[in-house]
Amino acid sequence: MKTNKSENNLKELGKDLSKQIKKGKDPSLTFTLRGLTNIVFDKKTKSLSLGNKKLMRTFFNLAHAKKFLQTIEIASVSKNLIKEEKHASLRDAFYQIKRTIPNTKVNIVDEQPESDKAIEDLEVITGLSREQLNFNANKNGSVAGRVVISDKGDTIDWSKLGSGGWSIPSNVEDIKFKKVNAKYILYMEKAAVWERLHEDKFWEKQNCIIISSQGQTTRGIRRLLQRLSEEYKLPIYILTDFDAWGFYIYSVIKYGSIALAHLGSKMTIPTVKFLGITANDIEHYGLNKHLIKLNDKDIARMKQIMDYEWFKDNKDWQEQFKLMKKMGAKAEIQALSSRGISFISEEYLPEKIKKKDFLD
Amino acid sequence: MKTNKSENNLKELGKDLSKQIKKGKDPSLTFTLRGLTNIVFDKKTKSLSLGNKKLMRTFFNLAHAKKFLQTIEIASVSKNLIKEEKHASLRDAFYQIKRTIPNTKVNIVDEQPESDKAIEDLEVITGLSREQLNFNANKNGSVAGRVVISDKGDTIDWSKLGSGGWSIPSNVEDIKFKKVNAKYILYMEKAAVWERLHEDKFWEKQNCIIISSQGQTTRGIRRLLQRLSEEYKLPIYILTDFDAWGFYIYSVIKYGSIALAHLGSKMTIPTVKFLGITANDIEHYGLNKHLIKLNDKDIARMKQIMDYEWFKDNKDWQEQFKLMKKMGAKAEIQALSSRGISFISEEYLPEKIKKKDFLD
Repeated sequence: MKTNKSENNLKELGKDLSKQIKKGKDPSLTFTLRGLTNIVFDKKTKSLSLGNKKLMRTFFNLAHAKKFLQTIEIASVSKNLIKEEKHASLRDAFYQIKRTIPNTKVNIVDEQPESDKAIEDLEVITGLSREQLNFNANKNGSVAGRVVISDKGDTIDWSKLGSGGWSIPSNVEDIKFKKVNAKYILYMEKAAVWERLHEDKFWEKQNCIIISSQGQTTRGIRRLLQRLSEEYKLPIYILTDFDAWGFYIYSVIKYGSIALAHLGSKMTIPTVKFLGITANDIEHYGLNKHLIKLNDKDIARMKQIMDYEWFKDNKDWQEQFKLMKKMGAKAEIQALSSRGISFISEEYLPEKIKKKDFLD
Repeated sequence: MKTNKSENNLKELGKDLSKQIKKGKDPSLTFTLRGLTNIVFDKKTKSLSLGNKKLMRTFFNLAHAKKFLQTIEIASVSKNLIKEEKHASLRDAFYQIKRTIPNTKVNIVDEQPESDKAIEDLEVITGLSREQLNFNANKNGSVAGRVVISDKGDTIDWSKLGSGGWSIPSNVEDIKFKKVNAKYILYMEKAAVWERLHEDKFWEKQNCIIISSQGQTTRGIRRLLQRLSEEYKLPIYILTDFDAWGFYIYSVIKYGSIALAHLGSKMTIPTVKFLGITANDIEHYGLNKHLIKLNDKDIARMKQIMDYEWFKDNKDWQEQFKLMKKMGAKAEIQALSSRGISFISEEYLPEKIKKKDFLD
C-alpha cells in the first residue's frame, strides 16, 4: 500500500515534469517554502507546521538549477529504492547522487546537507515522509512489553526477548501490530533506565510498554510511539532528566521541531504527557542533595525553551521553569537510585502514574 | 555460578578487612597499580595489561582514607546487587554511594569519576570484571544471524526478529548459546550499514552473524564477540571507515585499551581481523572520488595510532598509514553506496571474505 502510494506520487512528479519539457516550458517545481520565515505553530493540530508561503523552483534559473537537479536526482534514487524494496540511509543517499556532471567540473552534491535538503524538499513536494520515500534515519533504542508484531515475515513477541528487548529499526512503517496488551507507554531518554525497569519487570507488573533511546528520539521511535498512540489510543508518558535537554525531548515529541515543521502533525503526538523528573519530585522524593548546578549552556538553553509558544502560556510549565531558576540546578533520573536501586520502579513511577501526576 | 564466585570474592575481601580490624591493625588493601606507569603490552596474550607494580592503600592515611572508603562502599553496593540479582549502571552506582559522611561536611563521592575509579579498583582487587560485579555499562547495538540463545527464561532466535534484530544488553554474562550456526561474525561500527546488510539478508546468504554498535564498541558487544569467538571459534571481521577512529575501534577490540588495561586479556580478542575499508579498497573499488580530506584532528589521531606498539612493527598496517598519508584523505564505508545501494553486500564483502583479504 505504502509503496504504491509513494511510487505513484513520484511517477506523477516525473510525468508532470516531462509534460512541461515536451511543451517547451522551463520545467518548474512549486512547493511550500521551508525555513524560519514560513514556520507557524498550528494551534488546531498543536504542531509546528509550515505556513502558506510558496516557492517556485525553475530549471533555467542559475540560482535554482543545481537544487532543481538535486531534487530530481533524489526523486530518482527514491523511486529505485521503492521499486527494489530497499532502504537507504541519508549518508547512502548522499553517495548515490554524488558524482560529477558530465563535461563539467561540478558535482551534483559536495556535502551531505545538500542531499538532506533535497530529501526534505521531496517530502514537501510529494507530501510523503522520508520513511515513505525509503530513506531511513539512524537506528537506536529498545522496546519491551506485551506486544506481538509481524515484521518482514517474522512474528516477534516483545515480552520474550530476554534482557535485550527488540532493537527498534529506523523505519517502522511496515510493521504490523498483532496483539497489543498494555495500559500505557513509558518512554525514557536513557537506555540505562530502561535496563533498570526491564530487570525489575516493570512492564509486566504495570502492564505497559517501555521504550528508550539514548539521547534524542530517533524518527523510528517517534513513529513507533505515534502509531501505538493513534492505532491503540495508548497514553504516552515521558521520563527524562529535569533539565533543558529533557524538556526539549518532550517538546519535540509533542509539538514537533523547526527541522521537521514541513511534516507538521505527521510526526507529533499532542497527547503525550511529561511524567518527570519535575521540580516537585525533587522536593517530594528527597533529591535535593543530588541537584547539579546549572551551567551557562543550561541557562541559555532554558531561556530558549521558556519562550516556546506552547510553553509561554502554560502555567504549569512556567512554574517548573521558575522553580528551576530558583534552585539554580538540574537533576537526573538516576538520582532516584540514591533512594535504592529499584526505588524508581517500585515507588516513584507507580505513585506518579497512580496519582496522574503529569505535566501537560 | 558467576554470582557465587563474585559473592565469594567480595565476602573474602570483607572477611580479610574485618580480621585486620579485629587484630587492631590499620586496615589495608594491596592491589596492582593502575595508571600509565604500570601499563605494558603483554606480548604473550597480545593485550594491553598491567605490570607488576603494587599499591597498598591504608585506611589511616589521610591521602588514602577517602579512596579506601569509596572502594569499600562500592564493594558493599556490588554485594547487595549480586544478592538481589540486580544490576546498576555506573551512574546508579555513583548515586548509591553519594551521601555525606555523618557529622562531617564531606561527601563520600562528589563526581562520578570517583565511583568509576572505585569500581575499577574493585575489579583489580577481586579479579572480577565490572559485569561480574553487576555494574553495567551503556547498552547499544543490534545483532542478527542463525543463533538461538536463552536469556532470562526466554528463548530468542536471532534469525526471526524482523527488521530490528535483537537489542544487545549491556551485560551478556548470563546468556546461554543454544544453537550457533555461522561461519564467521561481521562486526561494523555503523548501525546504518547493519540495516543495509540486514535488509539484503546478508547473514542468511553468507551464513554469518552481523553485529553493530554506533561508534565505539560497548563492553556488552565486546563480551558478546569474545564469547562467540572463544566458545565457538568463530572468526571475527571488523568493518569500519578508513580513518583513525575506525582503526582505533579495531585496535581496542583486538589489543585492549589503556582504560581497561587492568582487565588484560579478559576483554581482548587477538584473533579479530580488519576487513576494511583499506587503502587498497579505495583503488580497487573505485572510491577515489569519494575521499574526504584529512583534517588536523584526523592527522593528530593518526600519529598516535601509528605509534601503538602492535602497529609499529606491523608492515601491512604501516603500509596503510603510509597510503593514507599519501592520499591525505579518509573514506567512509558508505562510499560503497556510490557503486549501488547493495554493492556492499553483493560484491564488496563476499569478494573480500572469499579472498581472505584482511589486515591482521
